[in-house]
Amino acid sequence: MKNMLKDVLNQVQAGSLTPEKAYHKLKDLPYQDLQFAKIDHHRELRRGFPEIIYGQGKTENHTIKIAREILKKGSSLLITRVEQKVYKKLKNDFPKICYNPQARVIHFKQQSPPEGKGKIMIITAGTSDIPVAEEAYITCNILGNEAEKLFDVGVAGIHRLLGEYQKIREARVIITVAGMEGALPSVIAGITDVPVIAVPTSVGYGASFNGLAALLTMLNSCAGGIGVVNIDNGFGAGFLASLINHL
Amino acid sequence: MKNMLKDVLNQVQAGSLTPEKAYHKLKDLPYQDLQFAKIDHHRELRRGFPEIIYGQGKTENHTIKIAREILKKGSSLLITRVEQKVYKKLKNDFPKICYNPQARVIHFKQQSPPEGKGKIMIITAGTSDIPVAEEAYITCNILGNEAEKLFDVGVAGIHRLLGEYQKIREARVIITVAGMEGALPSVIAGITDVPVIAVPTSVGYGASFNGLAALLTMLNSCAGGIGVVNIDNGFGAGFLASLINHL
Amino acid sequence: MKNMLKDVLNQVQAGSLTPEKAYHKLKDLPYQDLQFAKIDHHRELRRGFPEIIYGQGKTENHTIKIAREILKKGSSLLITRVEQKVYKKLKNDFPKICYNPQARVIHFKQQSPPEGKGKIMIITAGTSDIPVAEEAYITCNILGNEAEKLFDVGVAGIHRLLGEYQKIREARVIITVAGMEGALPSVIAGITDVPVIAVPTSVGYGASFNGLAALLTMLNSCAGGIGVVNIDNGFGAGFLASLINHL
Amino acid sequence: MKNMLKDVLNQVQAGSLTPEKAYHKLKDLPYQDLQFAKIDHHRELRRGFPEIIYGQGKTENHTIKIAREILKKGSSLLITRVEQKVYKKLKNDFPKICYNPQARVIHFKQQSPPEGKGKIMIITAGTSDIPVAEEAYITCNILGNEAEKLFDVGVAGIHRLLGEYQKIREARVIITVAGMEGALPSVIAGITDVPVIAVPTSVGYGASFNGLAALLTMLNSCAGGIGVVNIDNGFGAGFLASLINHL
Amino acid sequence: MKNMLKDVLNQVQAGSLTPEKAYHKLKDLPYQDLQFAKIDHHRELRRGFPEIIYGQGKTENHTIKIAREILKKGSSLLITRVEQKVYKKLKNDFPKICYNPQARVIHFKQQSPPEGKGKIMIITAGTSDIPVAEEAYITCNILGNEAEKLFDVGVAGIHRLLGEYQKIREARVIITVAGMEGALPSVIAGITDVPVIAVPTSVGYGASFNGLAALLTMLNSCAGGIGVVNIDNGFGAGFLASLINHL
Amino acid sequence: MKNMLKDVLNQVQAGSLTPEKAYHKLKDLPYQDLQFAKIDHHRELRRGFPEIIYGQGKTENHTIKIAREILKKGSSLLITRVEQKVYKKLKNDFPKICYNPQARVIHFKQQSPPEGKGKIMIITAGTSDIPVAEEAYITCNILGNEAEKLFDVGVAGIHRLLGEYQKIREARVIITVAGMEGALPSVIAGITDVPVIAVPTSVGYGASFNGLAALLTMLNSCAGGIGVVNIDNGFGAGFLASLINHL
Amino acid sequence: MKNMLKDVLNQVQAGSLTPEKAYHKLKDLPYQDLQFAKIDHHRELRRGFPEIIYGQGKTENHTIKIAREILKKGSSLLITRVEQKVYKKLKNDFPKICYNPQARVIHFKQQSPPEGKGKIMIITAGTSDIPVAEEAYITCNILGNEAEKLFDVGVAGIHRLLGEYQKIREARVIITVAGMEGALPSVIAGITDVPVIAVPTSVGYGASFNGLAALLTMLNSCAGGIGVVNIDNGFGAGFLASLINHL
Amino acid sequence: MKNMLKDVLNQVQAGSLTPEKAYHKLKDLPYQDLQFAKIDHHRELRRGFPEIIYGQGKTENHTIKIAREILKKGSSLLITRVEQKVYKKLKNDFPKICYNPQARVIHFKQQSPPEGKGKIMIITAGTSDIPVAEEAYITCNILGNEAEKLFDVGVAGIHRLLGEYQKIREARVIITVAGMEGALPSVIAGITDVPVIAVPTSVGYGASFNGLAALLTMLNSCAGGIGVVNIDNGFGAGFLASLINHL
Repeated sequence: MKNMLKDVLNQVQAGSLTPEKAYHKLKDLPYQDLQFAKIDHHRELRRGFPEIIYGQGKTENHTIKIAREILKKGSSLLITRVEQKVYKKLKNDFPKICYNPQARVIHFKQQSPPEGKGKIMIITAGTSDIPVAEEAYITCNILGNEAEKLFDVGVAGIHRLLGEYQKIREARVIITVAGMEGALPSVIAGITDVPVIAVPTSVGYGASFNGLAALLTMLNSCAGGIGVVNIDNGFGAGFLASLINHL
Repeated sequence: MKNMLKDVLNQVQAGSLTPEKAYHKLKDLPYQDLQFAKIDHHRELRRGFPEIIYGQGKTENHTIKIAREILKKGSSLLITRVEQKVYKKLKNDFPKICYNPQARVIHFKQQSPPEGKGKIMIITAGTSDIPVAEEAYITCNILGNEAEKLFDVGVAGIHRLLGEYQKIREARVIITVAGMEGALPSVIAGITDVPVIAVPTSVGYGASFNGLAALLTMLNSCAGGIGVVNIDNGFGAGFLASLINHL
Repeated sequence: MKNMLKDVLNQVQAGSLTPEKAYHKLKDLPYQDLQFAKIDHHRELRRGFPEIIYGQGKTENHTIKIAREILKKGSSLLITRVEQKVYKKLKNDFPKICYNPQARVIHFKQQSPPEGKGKIMIITAGTSDIPVAEEAYITCNILGNEAEKLFDVGVAGIHRLLGEYQKIREARVIITVAGMEGALPSVIAGITDVPVIAVPTSVGYGASFNGLAALLTMLNSCAGGIGVVNIDNGFGAGFLASLINHL
Repeated sequence: MKNMLKDVLNQVQAGSLTPEKAYHKLKDLPYQDLQFAKIDHHRELRRGFPEIIYGQGKTENHTIKIAREILKKGSSLLITRVEQKVYKKLKNDFPKICYNPQARVIHFKQQSPPEGKGKIMIITAGTSDIPVAEEAYITCNILGNEAEKLFDVGVAGIHRLLGEYQKIREARVIITVAGMEGALPSVIAGITDVPVIAVPTSVGYGASFNGLAALLTMLNSCAGGIGVVNIDNGFGAGFLASLINHL
Repeated sequence: MKNMLKDVLNQVQAGSLTPEKAYHKLKDLPYQDLQFAKIDHHRELRRGFPEIIYGQGKTENHTIKIAREILKKGSSLLITRVEQKVYKKLKNDFPKICYNPQARVIHFKQQSPPEGKGKIMIITAGTSDIPVAEEAYITCNILGNEAEKLFDVGVAGIHRLLGEYQKIREARVIITVAGMEGALPSVIAGITDVPVIAVPTSVGYGASFNGLAALLTMLNSCAGGIGVVNIDNGFGAGFLASLINHL
Repeated sequence: MKNMLKDVLNQVQAGSLTPEKAYHKLKDLPYQDLQFAKIDHHRELRRGFPEIIYGQGKTENHTIKIAREILKKGSSLLITRVEQKVYKKLKNDFPKICYNPQARVIHFKQQSPPEGKGKIMIITAGTSDIPVAEEAYITCNILGNEAEKLFDVGVAGIHRLLGEYQKIREARVIITVAGMEGALPSVIAGITDVPVIAVPTSVGYGASFNGLAALLTMLNSCAGGIGVVNIDNGFGAGFLASLINHL
Repeated sequence: MKNMLKDVLNQVQAGSLTPEKAYHKLKDLPYQDLQFAKIDHHRELRRGFPEIIYGQGKTENHTIKIAREILKKGSSLLITRVEQKVYKKLKNDFPKICYNPQARVIHFKQQSPPEGKGKIMIITAGTSDIPVAEEAYITCNILGNEAEKLFDVGVAGIHRLLGEYQKIREARVIITVAGMEGALPSVIAGITDVPVIAVPTSVGYGASFNGLAALLTMLNSCAGGIGVVNIDNGFGAGFLASLINHL
Repeated sequence: MKNMLKDVLNQVQAGSLTPEKAYHKLKDLPYQDLQFAKIDHHRELRRGFPEIIYGQGKTENHTIKIAREILKKGSSLLITRVEQKVYKKLKNDFPKICYNPQARVIHFKQQSPPEGKGKIMIITAGTSDIPVAEEAYITCNILGNEAEKLFDVGVAGIHRLLGEYQKIREARVIITVAGMEGALPSVIAGITDVPVIAVPTSVGYGASFNGLAALLTMLNSCAGGIGVVNIDNGFGAGFLASLINHL
């Protein structure tokens, strides 16, 4: 933004821009105002992909309107935490969009973002963690990354995990998805030397407290090299993994 | 109340009031007893608006009876956290009342309260925070304030917020509504010099713990000048903003 | 800041400012960089008082250096959560500064800020809440407000509170300070029509959980018109009260 | 139990009881074993009323079987937290039993327990607290106490509470029922000199955390003389009140 | 207070009191104002004993001044949570006062309050709970009750508890004091038919969370007839027990 | 695994195994890969019973596929936290499998595991705790243990518990299942000298916080010899009891 | 106890015991009453070792008196959570007693309890967990078990753990001691088939919340066969392990 | 490890290694056993730096012995959370080691690790967050990274942050360190496109709950691209940043 500021100042001095226009340029450029939402189309320029829509808590109507604006600009679309009925309505006008019911995600790749440099491995401790892993997988994908899934290799059967050791070592970034005691990232981080992103899930019996137990486990890992995201936040993990993978 | 006490004492001494009547005057004046509720009609005299009804946890029947009494007195009506079916029943007898389904509020302005002195700006971090913001907006309105909405300017796209800086500076009181990390009031309070009321919302992924995260953020703000209200309590924010705006 | 931006742009177009200088003007103006701290001297221009120093967690050395810079500029000084030994060291060079050992606050009024419009009443539930109330009192004072103290009128002896009713009604803004069950602001807000700022304190037996109980009480008040600040945050309450009182 | 032990021992020595019979007497007397439940009929002898059934978490079938056994013995029946459909099934055979849908309680007084010595006053802060208060009321009643209801006199309108002061002073035991900030018992205990039982309710906005806020308030009350029971536990309050009222 | 109001009104009408005097009578009577504290001497008239001083968080100076005023009036003195050095200072002028170092309580009985009707039994689960039990014991005593101690009979050795059954049955009110899992009141309430006051203590290993575990246990007791007070609040338990014992 | 490693190394040296085959032997042996799940058939060899399926959070489809593979191998089947509709689908192909609707468990014993050495006693505090106890019972059974149920003997009626003392003393391992205050294991552990496994349940009023209260009680038990498992985790208790009973 | 009851009854009938004596026999036998403590000497008969003293919260005086009584009876002594100064005082009269300053335990084996059947392995994740492990070790020892220590094999370096696999497999019972994320028991339970006792420790950075994180991890373990004890409760783990090892 | 396994297997087949030696090679290679600690010297080979020592909870003696072994091998040394007195003892033999008293870190770079590819920017919200930032800085440094500090640019003075925008954009990885409301990473992540590591600190008033508030804020950030580490865990942040910076 400071560069933009300098540019504008230079143009104003050079006479190619009046102060009034400069003011409006700075004010109007970055987003499109729908009153109930301000869509940050500029984000695509800055980061190679458009704004992602968090579906939860939005009215169907609002979600659909924002989605339309993004699709009309030719940008790729990603809506998380969204019900199938929104997909069905949106599909009438944009028949190519996809819906993943486990991950509850609408996605459509209209643009090819810059490619990530390596492979992102997405590992779950159990089968119940798959929905969150799928959200991460779709996110990695739409952001231009090669991603691979490795499911149900939790630490209670450490041989299953060690049996996939070679595959794990091929990753440039690792996303670990685990509920219950959430110990998977600790073990993974101990046997690899790439960044590990840890996603706690809300899977578990009572004292998991909807993912709090796994969250605390991951934050307290004695193994270095782990960055934690929010409970069930597959999208956040995929996004961070992609940023790292594009370095 | 003490003034009222003095008045009563003076009248008793002056002979215009017997002790017995004085006693009953003090006892009976302030509210109307429906057994299941004591309606504080006196509040309108003291504060310029009648008792507000908190709909949650009340039976339909109770809510409707209280509402009728308030409307029959010619007072303005505000019911928060109330379902549409209550509105439909009440509308038969009082066809002018309104219902806002996002905010889940019944409202009807029969009386013009004293006007607030400036503008109250209601700002949300995201689109999902709108229901709470609407509750605040309707509250501000029925209490006699000019209010303006500014939605979806959360701190993750700081340029959207700064782009509205001039509008924000026009406010006499600011209500900020934010879920997830709830950082909006900190940034707003840092760039303005009017009171900022912060409303955490229950919008967010798992570790938002239904608004607890945003609540703690707001209480811990390093920016001075912020007063926090309960999670999702748009009404409380609007009420406090109105008190300040009437000073 | 947007106004400042417009001004700078106008000067650049008018020739009174080169783009390079404009850039540096924007960058350098607002604060003084001590490496370990960035002092926001500009704040005094914007808001009528300088940056307040939060003493806790800072080294003695850092605190003293920041204080010196503020005092050397002729600004008023306020340091909260600070030990007496810092005061003693600072006093050698600035003998006029004061220390309040109960509130653990260093303060010195070198500048007269704009005067607040009414009186701020600071009310505590008990005697143990006084240190927090004193922090609020000093803050109100240094920010240009008339403030009055009313201590030990908690709700368990409601007659003590009602006995001071007339005094309470004279306030333009009320700060309530209470630990244990923290019910004081609910009762106060019910009998007044000015904004009530609620400060929970960490005073109490075990299940007060160091002020959490009082905090929750205040957030859940059924009486409208209450804005809550952090536990034991007398400064924050004084600051918000002052903002309101200057409207 | 020790007295019973002594009696048995004396009978054994006197020859009126064989050791074998004594053993079985001690083992079999106190309860009736339905496999899934052990009904403590003996409790009625010890305490003047039979075992109360906590309906939640029990299968319909279990609840009904236990209820039948109690009714068949001619004892009074009290089932808390129970759905209407259980009532409807049970009513076929026992047409006199009653159901209170707000309190979700089945009750039927077949026996007259010893009478309590004074009046139990049941006071709620708001209208939404009534279901819990009704559970307490029915409990007091079936246990032989005169009880009186006083609803919607929360502390935010302290005059409504003080207006009922005389009525409150007539009670021998007071049950206060309050959600949100739960400050009612503090104020009541401050103006009376009888035991106050405090029942927090789960009524409130987000940061009430389903009654936790009110619970903490009540535990931290600075007013002496308050005993707290579980959240929404109207039965527990009624039971304790009755014990005290029978002293 | 309402009776007092009626009296005053009658006197005003009768001419024996001017309105102005009436106003001051109502305002000045109930407490003595030391600025930092408002001593409620009137409480002794209303309830048979004076205000109790909660020592924690008060300056030595404040505590001593309040104590002096109470002692000078000839009232009994009770200060809880107070250090020995306060005792030593106060003892110079009032050599008869006592200090219990385990309970950290200063006490002196100058007045004989009305006598309680039965015996209050104070039972601890372990030896580590004794300080809290002693606070309760002294409180019961100064408020005019016969109290008896029964220590270290926790549920892990149920025979120790049952061995004292006869003694327990003699009580009119029972105070149970327990840390760790806090199960003592459940068992006691199951074998008696008098009110049981439960005091959780902060005794225990890590997951006792300073008494939270015992507190929750007591609130969730499946045995009816238990009223819970704050963690380590021996005073509160003694106070409530005394109220009940004076009925 | 180290023994297996040594064996493999010896075979490689002896020429009976090539390094390549050795590698694959180590890698492939332990589990069957269904992509979404890795079934640990090897577990049956190591521990005498196959992998247990945790149904919650798995799609119906996934659960059924895993179950089929286990059943096709001739292993015993245990699925916990599973809905009846999964049972109905699976039953078409495997008509002998059973479903327990209270425990929500599918089970079928195709193999006879090694027999446990003594009896496992499963004790509940109340009738509402039965579903969890049944999950434990079925687990004990399928793992080869004799188990006996003893329901509704909570500590509030201590005589019911003591009345079953002889039966309790016959157990080699005891599982105690309790919600609300969860005090049962403390009392049981105090009167026996075998290991006690404690299962907190989510049964209770508000401040049980879905089993947290009972969990903390059990962790804080002053009686030695108690091992705690997760809230409502009947399976985990049965599994641990079986391990102990097979020693 | 029931057997004892039957015996007593038989003796009474046979004339060898009067009812009065029988009563006193039952009452007096089980413990020695020091007023502030009831020492359960009978426990040694029932369980093979005497009462253990929990030092925390007890006065020095009380601890020493209880210890003396136990030592004078010739029983073994174990005091946990006790300061060195108590040891020094006690050592004057009983010079053979030992103190472990890391574990803060006084111990002295005067009696040889029955021997445990196998080896108890005590494993820590890190070096900081050693004090808790030592408390467990001493407990195992004094209760008659062979115990072996294996320290600093946390999951972040899984090869260190697997490198000790053979040693681990030799244990009959395993105690795992871990702070931070506490994942050690999950991995251990996955590779063994004996009971695993999990002890969370308070070792860790901020979000370990003094052991809460490790506690939750252990309760939520996806590996069956784990029983959890309280945070830092080495004694409890040793006690449970010993019970199992004596089966 | 699997590659190592294959190598060993090949050598065994080739005759260059006996099975017995192969076994010991696998077992002994990875770490050095000091009984109380297992030093993972192998880690330096795998990851380019040796094991880091977490000082807290270790005895001085243990810490020093581990440090000596690491230093004697010629490896670099990093001890976190360690007191100055340990440094002083260690310095006698290794005079070149350094101690940073704010960060409480001992460090000494004997080896040059592989260099990171870009710059790591370490940004704090306030001056009180500096100790944690210094721990991160030293960690980055010893692991071979260029790091730069930018302190006291919290969101309450957003212009201070934007004033450093150009510097921030130069980083390849950003570490943000913030207490109180912890909103800094949200704003930073919104204006950059590199990974942001968020470290909550325990700096703040009461409701920061020792860093919990900042932790939740960071986990709930609406800005993508943030990985969170434990409260006050500067080391963990530096370690993760270094891993990313070496990709």
